[in-house]
Amino acid sequence: MAACIFCKIIKGEIPAFKLFESEKVFAFLDIQPLSRGHALVIPKFHGEKLHDIPDDQLAELLPVAKNIAIACGAIDYNILQNNGKIAHQFVPHVSIPMIPKPNEEEGLVVSWPIQQTDMDKLKVLHAEIKAKM
Amino acid sequence: MAACIFCKIIKGEIPAFKLFESEKVFAFLDIQPLSRGHALVIPKFHGEKLHDIPDDQLAELLPVAKNIAIACGAIDYNILQNNGKIAHQFVPHVSIPMIPKPNEEEGLVVSWPIQQTDMDKLKVLHAEIKAKM
Repeated sequence: MAACIFCKIIKGEIPAFKLFESEKVFAFLDIQPLSRGHALVIPKFHGEKLHDIPDDQLAELLPVAKNIAIACGAIDYNILQNNGKIAHQFVPHVSIPMIPKPNEEEGLVVSWPIQQTDMDKLKVLHAEIKAKM
Repeated sequence: MAACIFCKIIKGEIPAFKLFESEKVFAFLDIQPLSRGHALVIPKFHGEKLHDIPDDQLAELLPVAKNIAIACGAIDYNILQNNGKIAHQFVPHVSIPMIPKPNEEEGLVVSWPIQQTDMDKLKVLHAEIKAKM
């Protein structure tokens, strides 16, 4: 994808603070961090959303995010993967941010608007999803 | 881990709306969903944080989350993995929620408190993390 900023970073056409590279994965520091050590792990395979990426291109992403968390000494942290503008996706190429959470103010801030538990609805939904898997 | 609620779900000691099970992975509907289709994908290997889980136990997690997103028809969604109470971890066993984001109100709500870009600090940090990888 010629116009994709992440594809350009992978190709070295845009400089980046590269942390890791393998056949399938590229990782670098986010230059607009939410906290010290905030890094992005991306598949080299271009796809906008997680469901656009083949399974074998996904397997290494979490291990790399884990290794960056360890290397930067993160104790508490969030791993995220946003699909769609409404879900806070900025760049249309799958990415996995590893965001250290050193205190309440820095890092990812999350709200958790829990819906009422409805066991009957869940039963119907469960059957529906199971049938498609 | 006898006391772990997720280990009990894996063993079938606590009922769950199971969506998928393999040698290494278990997935089920969250009964306190943020949106329709909110599911949890967990490694069977017990570990509190991502860095406690061996790489080979992590490889299948994102593919399974992806397949659930497809099966429940999610178009926009967040995949999350929280490490530490301050980072919104509720249960001390690694989990990957797949949370559909159908509209602004339902699903995960995220704030993104970007820090000022400081290229000099990033250069130092980059060298520091690279040396430990």
